[in-house]
Amino acid sequence: MTDNLSGIFPPLTTPFTDDELALDMLLRNLRKYERRELSGYVLFGSNGESAFLTREEKLQIVTTVREQTKKLLITGTGLDSIKDTISLTNNAAEKGANYALVITPSFFKSEMKHLTFLNYYSKVAESVMIPVIIYNVPKFTNVNIEPETIIKLAEHPNIIGLKDSTENPARISEIVSHVPKSFKVIVGTASVLYPGLSSGAVGGILALANIAPDECLQIYNLFVENKFTEALELQNKMIPVNRAVTAKFGVAGLKAAMDLRGYSGGNPRLPLEPLSEAQLIELKMILKKASLIE
Amino acid sequence: MTDNLSGIFPPLTTPFTDDELALDMLLRNLRKYERRELSGYVLFGSNGESAFLTREEKLQIVTTVREQTKKLLITGTGLDSIKDTISLTNNAAEKGANYALVITPSFFKSEMKHLTFLNYYSKVAESVMIPVIIYNVPKFTNVNIEPETIIKLAEHPNIIGLKDSTENPARISEIVSHVPKSFKVIVGTASVLYPGLSSGAVGGILALANIAPDECLQIYNLFVENKFTEALELQNKMIPVNRAVTAKFGVAGLKAAMDLRGYSGGNPRLPLEPLSEAQLIELKMILKKASLIE
Amino acid sequence: MTDNLSGIFPPLTTPFTDDELALDMLLRNLRKYERRELSGYVLFGSNGESAFLTREEKLQIVTTVREQTKKLLITGTGLDSIKDTISLTNNAAEKGANYALVITPSFFKSEMKHLTFLNYYSKVAESVMIPVIIYNVPKFTNVNIEPETIIKLAEHPNIIGLKDSTENPARISEIVSHVPKSFKVIVGTASVLYPGLSSGAVGGILALANIAPDECLQIYNLFVENKFTEALELQNKMIPVNRAVTAKFGVAGLKAAMDLRGYSGGNPRLPLEPLSEAQLIELKMILKKASLIE
Amino acid sequence: MTDNLSGIFPPLTTPFTDDELALDMLLRNLRKYERRELSGYVLFGSNGESAFLTREEKLQIVTTVREQTKKLLITGTGLDSIKDTISLTNNAAEKGANYALVITPSFFKSEMKHLTFLNYYSKVAESVMIPVIIYNVPKFTNVNIEPETIIKLAEHPNIIGLKDSTENPARISEIVSHVPKSFKVIVGTASVLYPGLSSGAVGGILALANIAPDECLQIYNLFVENKFTEALELQNKMIPVNRAVTAKFGVAGLKAAMDLRGYSGGNPRLPLEPLSEAQLIELKMILKKASLIE
Repeated sequence: MTDNLSGIFPPLTTPFTDDELALDMLLRNLRKYERRELSGYVLFGSNGESAFLTREEKLQIVTTVREQTKKLLITGTGLDSIKDTISLTNNAAEKGANYALVITPSFFKSEMKHLTFLNYYSKVAESVMIPVIIYNVPKFTNVNIEPETIIKLAEHPNIIGLKDSTENPARISEIVSHVPKSFKVIVGTASVLYPGLSSGAVGGILALANIAPDECLQIYNLFVENKFTEALELQNKMIPVNRAVTAKFGVAGLKAAMDLRGYSGGNPRLPLEPLSEAQLIELKMILKKASLIE
Repeated sequence: MTDNLSGIFPPLTTPFTDDELALDMLLRNLRKYERRELSGYVLFGSNGESAFLTREEKLQIVTTVREQTKKLLITGTGLDSIKDTISLTNNAAEKGANYALVITPSFFKSEMKHLTFLNYYSKVAESVMIPVIIYNVPKFTNVNIEPETIIKLAEHPNIIGLKDSTENPARISEIVSHVPKSFKVIVGTASVLYPGLSSGAVGGILALANIAPDECLQIYNLFVENKFTEALELQNKMIPVNRAVTAKFGVAGLKAAMDLRGYSGGNPRLPLEPLSEAQLIELKMILKKASLIE
Repeated sequence: MTDNLSGIFPPLTTPFTDDELALDMLLRNLRKYERRELSGYVLFGSNGESAFLTREEKLQIVTTVREQTKKLLITGTGLDSIKDTISLTNNAAEKGANYALVITPSFFKSEMKHLTFLNYYSKVAESVMIPVIIYNVPKFTNVNIEPETIIKLAEHPNIIGLKDSTENPARISEIVSHVPKSFKVIVGTASVLYPGLSSGAVGGILALANIAPDECLQIYNLFVENKFTEALELQNKMIPVNRAVTAKFGVAGLKAAMDLRGYSGGNPRLPLEPLSEAQLIELKMILKKASLIE
Repeated sequence: MTDNLSGIFPPLTTPFTDDELALDMLLRNLRKYERRELSGYVLFGSNGESAFLTREEKLQIVTTVREQTKKLLITGTGLDSIKDTISLTNNAAEKGANYALVITPSFFKSEMKHLTFLNYYSKVAESVMIPVIIYNVPKFTNVNIEPETIIKLAEHPNIIGLKDSTENPARISEIVSHVPKSFKVIVGTASVLYPGLSSGAVGGILALANIAPDECLQIYNLFVENKFTEALELQNKMIPVNRAVTAKFGVAGLKAAMDLRGYSGGNPRLPLEPLSEAQLIELKMILKKASLIE
């Protein structure tokens, strides 16, 4: 197992059969990903439908995946409740998780600012057995954690990184220029992988990597080899696909695209709806245009 | 115990000592409320800091309060996960809860619309042992459930009401005019108690009732007695206080006001911060101006 | 001419032929409205497509309408530029306008707060020849003017009222309880006409009054006669229609509904699009359900 | 005069004395800028307080500046009214403007989408004498024009570029990869100058260039010379300054920073307020930390 928090990590989707966890499908996907140079996996991130999973289901997923891979496992264990976050994180660590991806608390939106974020992350970080990665995703939380707050939190020995799911690389370069080298910034969406890497990020946790892991790895590798023009070209080709499996069609779109690409996607969990026929046709056209299906 | 879902319900705050549940303080408050003509209580609603409580703490609260009162207990048991919502609701029911107040799911904001809400509430309602009250509170969830969706859900025999925490009474009158009499609409903030009642609501779940239960009851009673001008006057007097303990100073302000009014407020739980000295002084002036303290 | 700023005012739509001002159509509509007990008219308000009209066109409209009616004319003369607002207001006054409806400035959204609003409205009010009505419409401006700011501005002798186009009557009752009787609050949308009047408003400037003036007048009159239940019932019947001609289908929907009701609506001006066939069918169904067409 | 729309353009602020246009101050600033390798100037852009200027004042500014420089002049002539936009643009062209920077119309926010934008920009572009640059600035307009709409509009022979003031470079790379080489994308804020250039932009219209033109030029030149690390380092140093003169302190902050840097800033126009003493001290510290003042 490498300890290097860089490169490409797919945030694994969670497959269901009849609305119940389908771990066999998850493992089928995992075996395909294991053949690639992926750096590890995120379990029950946003696109893993974490919001719809019980604590027991989450721990089952860590256990199952841990048995099948030696790669890094990052688990989405953040909840508004500090107590719940700590206990879930420690339970996940016992089952083999390497890092905790901790989403910003967000219920009391107008109260979520510098001091409350310091309170929250300091308390969590000092109480858990594995290192904490801050997770900023305003499109789901409607709160935003400012660079200056991240820079302050980066001083904590057990807070070792940030997944930033805005599309704003100015945040990345500002943060990177103020934190120690050991603090890693990872972009949270493939649309800004290239400018994110240009601005100091060291990797990506990318929904797109569930359906196009090779292309995501290639953008990353081209960047590392200073082949900037090729990196940008490939990223641009992927932008419409990335939009389709995130903003446009959401988790249902991501899972449908997995099915089309030979992975086990299946339906999202209730209350989400699968794609309509019309949406599925549009999705196929987008994948086709990007040469991801024939 | 009355079964009538009308009148005034305080959503009880949850007191903490050293950041741990302080049930003795909760009971001290409860004894004071029990002397009033309140219709019941909401346990772990938004202002009960539900977001920061573990499942075990929530169930402890129901058990403790149920032992001390025969009034209606409405419990905030809604979570994004349908499974968790069902099991928490049924556990709360076993401990004596009468109704489940189920907040709209909200994580995947852009997916939360007519059909997904129907999926969610139908599944929950058919799987729980107590009646469901839909809870719409866009200021915390950033999603809004439309009148037409509520009207459709009101057909379900186990969905019996709505707590609406917008300040828009047009929603209330539109809903009330399209649902059976047995479906009850309750306003979620004291600033619109009077226009809400005028528009067809039958009661209020009001943070303000934690600190000014008599005034809330009086507005309600004046309205019932057709003393509209007096009702409106008293409500107007309370609007600045209500703003102070909700939008302006949040839960910290509500708890500080409880302390000032002789209840056991205490600090909010981490990561929230208590009021600053300057905020406390402003709060005192607001309460004084409304004759709630001397 | 009455000077009493109360009752129902339609904000007249502006008809176009081949995208040019069609004053003959405007007068045709006006003649129909003149037979009703409307209190006056708003010229080039939001729904009058003020944003798309040149200064010359606006002044033409005042001149033309003034010649045909003795009723109150309220003109939408607010712009971000104080200089332009003053000169347009004074020009409109010379052509016969009685009041200036001055929308909150909004370009620098984050700067629009208490002090800047005081600067703006004080400067305008002291420089124009007719009284100023503040116009708050966050759905178009994305800024909101707080009750405390309005209460302060109400002290100015030439600021005599507020059109509030939020749907929140708590704002109305709070304002009304703190300003002199001579300061009038008028609701800006029919969905809250009844609770607005209940909360202290004295009238409505209502897009709906362009297509259903009699129903708007009836709600108002029922309220004045203390026939609250009937007032509420009629308002509820109108809510879906009001939504159709405002939030749902916008100006294009309002104009299409005018055509269906025998007024001269026509197309909105470029860049707006007229309704599609499907939208038109839906609109017809909504009007039919409310018995506004057969 | 060069025709090349690339490099750095300051959007000139508009100085006032006693709230009236102070063209002498403007020329004093211009003389200093003229000594730099700036590509041209934007007149009455957002930070030029275009919203507060009359048409006559705008035309005075073009005339005055045109007499003093041979560089490119880009003028902010977009208004919601198509008629006004066309006539102001043509008047500005007669006075010597080279390009029209046309902000997205925004009053009817919910109607501003693909088709309405096509209507608006096509009509404007075919009716004006100088080429049109689309201006997307959601923080002021609360509307966003999508890449697919821009790509479509780029087919029009008289629409030759985009100023994009989001901080999202994924938009830039997607657009650039779908439009002809002759269509230029320019970033609208210095925080993303480097990632913007990396993603295919060819220049910047930067408020920061009013106070730090040399630093902005240096970032641009370093990028052009493939000195990416140095470019990024300098940009990161400027990010706090850029935030201070845009999001944090607005136009008042930008003008105060100009005064501190030896330019003629002065106060913003009414209704805006100048900085408070406390804000001024904070601004000084930020400029000092970036070595822009001693």
